[in-house]
Amino acid sequence: MPVGTKGTVKGLTPGDLRAVGAGIVLGNTYHLYLRPGSDLVREAGGLHGFMGWDGPVLTDSGGYQVFSLAETRRISEDGVEFASVYDGSRHVFTPELTTRVQEELGSDIAMVLDECPPANAAREYHERSLRRTARWALRCKEAHEKRDQALFGIVQGGLYPDLREESLGLTVEIGFDGYAVGGLSVGESRQQMLETLECTAPGLPHEKPRYFMGIGDPVGILQVIALGVDMFDCVLPTRLARHGAALTAEGRINLKNARYRRDFGPLDPECSCEACTTYSKAYLAHLVRENELLGHRLLTLHNVHFTVDLCGMARREIRAGTYAAWSRAWISRYAGSPT
Amino acid sequence: MPVGTKGTVKGLTPGDLRAVGAGIVLGNTYHLYLRPGSDLVREAGGLHGFMGWDGPVLTDSGGYQVFSLAETRRISEDGVEFASVYDGSRHVFTPELTTRVQEELGSDIAMVLDECPPANAAREYHERSLRRTARWALRCKEAHEKRDQALFGIVQGGLYPDLREESLGLTVEIGFDGYAVGGLSVGESRQQMLETLECTAPGLPHEKPRYFMGIGDPVGILQVIALGVDMFDCVLPTRLARHGAALTAEGRINLKNARYRRDFGPLDPECSCEACTTYSKAYLAHLVRENELLGHRLLTLHNVHFTVDLCGMARREIRAGTYAAWSRAWISRYAGSPT
Repeated sequence: MPVGTKGTVKGLTPGDLRAVGAGIVLGNTYHLYLRPGSDLVREAGGLHGFMGWDGPVLTDSGGYQVFSLAETRRISEDGVEFASVYDGSRHVFTPELTTRVQEELGSDIAMVLDECPPANAAREYHERSLRRTARWALRCKEAHEKRDQALFGIVQGGLYPDLREESLGLTVEIGFDGYAVGGLSVGESRQQMLETLECTAPGLPHEKPRYFMGIGDPVGILQVIALGVDMFDCVLPTRLARHGAALTAEGRINLKNARYRRDFGPLDPECSCEACTTYSKAYLAHLVRENELLGHRLLTLHNVHFTVDLCGMARREIRAGTYAAWSRAWISRYAGSPT
Repeated sequence: MPVGTKGTVKGLTPGDLRAVGAGIVLGNTYHLYLRPGSDLVREAGGLHGFMGWDGPVLTDSGGYQVFSLAETRRISEDGVEFASVYDGSRHVFTPELTTRVQEELGSDIAMVLDECPPANAAREYHERSLRRTARWALRCKEAHEKRDQALFGIVQGGLYPDLREESLGLTVEIGFDGYAVGGLSVGESRQQMLETLECTAPGLPHEKPRYFMGIGDPVGILQVIALGVDMFDCVLPTRLARHGAALTAEGRINLKNARYRRDFGPLDPECSCEACTTYSKAYLAHLVRENELLGHRLLTLHNVHFTVDLCGMARREIRAGTYAAWSRAWISRYAGSPT
């Protein structure tokens, strides 16, 4: 899911997103609640009407941003109080409020409010936190009234297999339309992340979508897919683009590197996006060096296309029963290339 | 002519430019010579190949930027020495060099190197300057070798009718594929600009294109067309967009104004561009307030579309013999509206 933080995937129109094959877009409740306000988005016909995007939209609950952006926050059983990153104003997110806000935003999939503690928090903290998150999840489900909106639960528990199991049990017991694995990709090693996912994923209901929150690098995507994940989101493809970096089948490259100044070949010869079929690396490198809007736009288009395309390939390989060998070869080529 | 200063019209692709009906794009020799270098652009197949734009391109000579951007410059009979706005490095533009550079850039229309003195410079200065500009124009013509590239002369002479006449005579005597009126729209009043153009335009050869350099506001465009101008360029439509301002049939509006926050109507109901047919003012205002790339892109698209469309209407009215009455009514509606 490309991330449209503030109701727009950085520089891309809904038409661009359709052209690169994006099937669903993520919106951030934290940002949209504060700016322009979920009441305004509701008046505009929800995120679909506001953005002009007729495909599916998933909104997060805002919890992750509260815990990662807000410096002064206070958690209680009721919810979490925080200071706006925009103007310092005080707000309280409760399970009931974030559910209502997501109903106003009109997303197709809403998320429960969860606490996302740092991976290295004490075991006792994770234990208390996951139980509160489960109580919040129940309150979200009880508050949820929008019948044409799915609601997903979130499994927490840090890096502790038994706590993950407890969180999973509590969440599945409440019953949701899909399940997310949260609290990973937040500072732990990639190895720890995969090990924790490996012991969590098998317990998730097989017939429901599985969403891994916050992974977007190509290798990571293939690794979590191998463990049974169906959905993921990350700002990486769009953020890299704004820093002049492009994803290619032969690894990540940075167009600010002097070697691309006179490279008149395409960014990625295997890619069919507009940036790769219309322009040279030399032109894109020029735009990036000059900080031109078109450079941000074209690299974003390419990186999103690349990532969506990778997922399409993964789906085909899974159907063909060749995923393991294919993804091993793909990762080896991508990771083994000079950057 | 939308201005593609550095080989890109801020945020728009060649496909966007075609979609809004732009027939020709301007590139700035000053910037392209310094970054990425005209030799590199030549290797890429000229500006057309570099940008991926197959329509006509006009390049200026770089003279205007030397005189408006460079703080330390030294003019001699040979040319003009200046410090790069990027890194302070010293360069010399001679008529021969700027002609060769434009040949490397591969534009369809090249301009002669001219000096563009401030409108309020002393009469004696304008007199000496226009004569040197004429000598430079001759050197440009003699240096010009690219047969499939037109070369335009530039009439100077400040606000003095007799000096304009002298410059016009000297320039027409050399003989060019088209003629530009330069040195206006550089600080004098609109009234002075129009009066000077009014006494210059009738002397320009009727069978050759007439290019007024540096006007782009809707009212100014209609005023110079009335005086016989065929071509013009200005960064105004693209620059306004980056400041959140949009051109509409009812005047210029700034989307940062609070009144547009909940305005769910289109930017300009009479406009058929993607920004006006797909999004609401409220959404565009949100993007502008959040400084989102998509906001810059969509407003640029709209402002360029609006300006190109205005020129299309002007052409139709001229053919119908109704230009005077139509433009009067158009200006009265545009200028009479609250902003």
